[in-house]
Amino acid sequence: MSELRVGVIGGGQLARMMTPPAINLGITLKVLAEAEGSSAALATTLVGDYNQVEVVAEFAKTVDVITFDHEHVPLAVLEALEANGVSVQPPSRALAFAQNKLRMRERLSQLNLPMPDWAEIHDADSLDSFIEAHGGVAILKTPIGGYDGKGVRVVSSSADAADWLSAEGLTKVGGHLLVEEKVAFVRELAQLSARNPSGEFLAWPLVQTVQANGVCSEVLAPAPNASEGTLEQAAVIAQAVSEGLGVTGVLAVEMFETADGRLLINELAMRPHNSGHFSIEGSVTSQFEQHLRAVLDLPLGSTLPTNAHAVMVNLLGVDDQNDFLPHYAQAQSAHPEVKIHTYGKGARAGRKMGHVTVVSGNAEWALEEARQAAKVLTQQA
Amino acid sequence: MSELRVGVIGGGQLARMMTPPAINLGITLKVLAEAEGSSAALATTLVGDYNQVEVVAEFAKTVDVITFDHEHVPLAVLEALEANGVSVQPPSRALAFAQNKLRMRERLSQLNLPMPDWAEIHDADSLDSFIEAHGGVAILKTPIGGYDGKGVRVVSSSADAADWLSAEGLTKVGGHLLVEEKVAFVRELAQLSARNPSGEFLAWPLVQTVQANGVCSEVLAPAPNASEGTLEQAAVIAQAVSEGLGVTGVLAVEMFETADGRLLINELAMRPHNSGHFSIEGSVTSQFEQHLRAVLDLPLGSTLPTNAHAVMVNLLGVDDQNDFLPHYAQAQSAHPEVKIHTYGKGARAGRKMGHVTVVSGNAEWALEEARQAAKVLTQQA
Repeated sequence: MSELRVGVIGGGQLARMMTPPAINLGITLKVLAEAEGSSAALATTLVGDYNQVEVVAEFAKTVDVITFDHEHVPLAVLEALEANGVSVQPPSRALAFAQNKLRMRERLSQLNLPMPDWAEIHDADSLDSFIEAHGGVAILKTPIGGYDGKGVRVVSSSADAADWLSAEGLTKVGGHLLVEEKVAFVRELAQLSARNPSGEFLAWPLVQTVQANGVCSEVLAPAPNASEGTLEQAAVIAQAVSEGLGVTGVLAVEMFETADGRLLINELAMRPHNSGHFSIEGSVTSQFEQHLRAVLDLPLGSTLPTNAHAVMVNLLGVDDQNDFLPHYAQAQSAHPEVKIHTYGKGARAGRKMGHVTVVSGNAEWALEEARQAAKVLTQQA
Repeated sequence: MSELRVGVIGGGQLARMMTPPAINLGITLKVLAEAEGSSAALATTLVGDYNQVEVVAEFAKTVDVITFDHEHVPLAVLEALEANGVSVQPPSRALAFAQNKLRMRERLSQLNLPMPDWAEIHDADSLDSFIEAHGGVAILKTPIGGYDGKGVRVVSSSADAADWLSAEGLTKVGGHLLVEEKVAFVRELAQLSARNPSGEFLAWPLVQTVQANGVCSEVLAPAPNASEGTLEQAAVIAQAVSEGLGVTGVLAVEMFETADGRLLINELAMRPHNSGHFSIEGSVTSQFEQHLRAVLDLPLGSTLPTNAHAVMVNLLGVDDQNDFLPHYAQAQSAHPEVKIHTYGKGARAGRKMGHVTVVSGNAEWALEEARQAAKVLTQQA
């Protein structure tokens, strides 16, 4: 038998959700997980520390291409693999921008792409100057390691970040911070796309994301009432980012939409992303199938929607007991069109443990169904 | 963590295709496979002989319910499990009808369900009488073990089945044969449905199946130009079979449609079936997800179509080399909307090794796309 073998570093829900399309397509999926019993346990072939080049190199020998469930693998590890001829997708030179938000902002500036004002901060004075010049408030970020609201702080004075700005604090975050203008956005959008090493690029329809406490809670696909100009602009931005940063595989560009219709790049994710989970049922080709095809340098699949609307609602943990399964019967009985996804994770308040998706010709109905099903599943015992 | 655990006996493509919905729903799927490296290897937790009650009983201890990839597990084995309180779905009393076509015909006759004329045959004379009474030709079947054209023969005289009718031949097939009227059908249809132990029943839209050399080659969903009366009649028949035979899980009823619009029951399958593969993309709930939900006695999911039409074309092996993967790039490039499925089987001429599905508002286009993609994938090197 011939084989197409994809190796994923990281055993989280993104690796888990790559498994179904791998099974369908007959692709051999292998996962290097941090621990036994991860979300992607079914496809796990090695458990080990991705910070150790020997571990990752051993794993790489068993596959045709290395890709990622997360963006935390040290660049030095990936560069060592690449130096030995391993196909790493996205490559280390692209991931460098995902791992360090300052490098990302610098590169996007070189590409003249639209984004919030930003500056590199090394001390209290430069931060206070930036805040003063931007209406008395700003967003301060650690350049490395932040996600889902972690490593991000709204500041109205350097005093709000005294811990990060202390000598010790600065050392911990790598010597500098990123400050960004606090954009008065009307909503948040995400543009999902994929690109393969041969350069084929394809975008999905633009979606709206709704955040609660810094974590994605709902995704509406396509973004309601988006103008043709906005849709086109978002896709152009995504392609410019993808090509300009050398991204391969799935790329999510999170953006702010302003009252005057501008799109400003907020965050980037060089992997399947929460904003794209709707695509499992809502697109002819899901982000997970597309990622596998892209990293294998296969032609990309159609990103046409399967219906006019898709709504995704995240299932966040409510306590350390409810893993949603005890509520399946009630949710499925009342909501036969809702697609339930859970990630096999232990229950913990606030944890991303699953999601539901509804695909429909009726956007309002889809949103209501998805919310009601999520409510049933996340009810406390 | 709570757990929903389904055990599947048999490691073929049906068990394989249950894996993606199990992952999505967070259901723990375990497979008892005949051998290492089966189609369902990813979910395999035990390799052993399903004819041995100890093997199956050991497997059953690890799951909440036992179900099937095929219908070949001896009834005595299943009855022993049931006697020990194991949930077997479908239960042995239903599978008895699937395993023996004579018992199936007897039961369907008791239920007054429409089917070809039939008789139990023990000798040449009774066979010749039946043939003579039915226009000089009939279909002779071994009651046990036939599938995909095996164990089925068109006969115009008992001389055509001298081997099966010899003392030795009759002993081999259990002492009797089934003869059926050769129906002058205009086409073949299949009605897919599911039923859970609580009695909830739900049918999918009726489909047309196209056979080549006794093996399913194409499925058109829904069946083109089927009248409301035909659609309703097919669903009524499926429900009568499901309830009358005590089937749980997915049931496929294969039927002949005659020139005067009658539906006659041909074969039954008490498991996900080739005629239902279209439902992976073509239905809100696929037959594989539905089967898992049904055997766990969870509420059934919507069987509404995701689009007006779905077409499935089987990928049959062409030689002992081509497992289709070398042709992925060509097929995917030319057919970005086609969903390719392969089963991880070694190449062999005539073997069911995969399928492609196209979902579309345009039936003609869907059929053409699916056929063309299948042609690319099955081309010889």
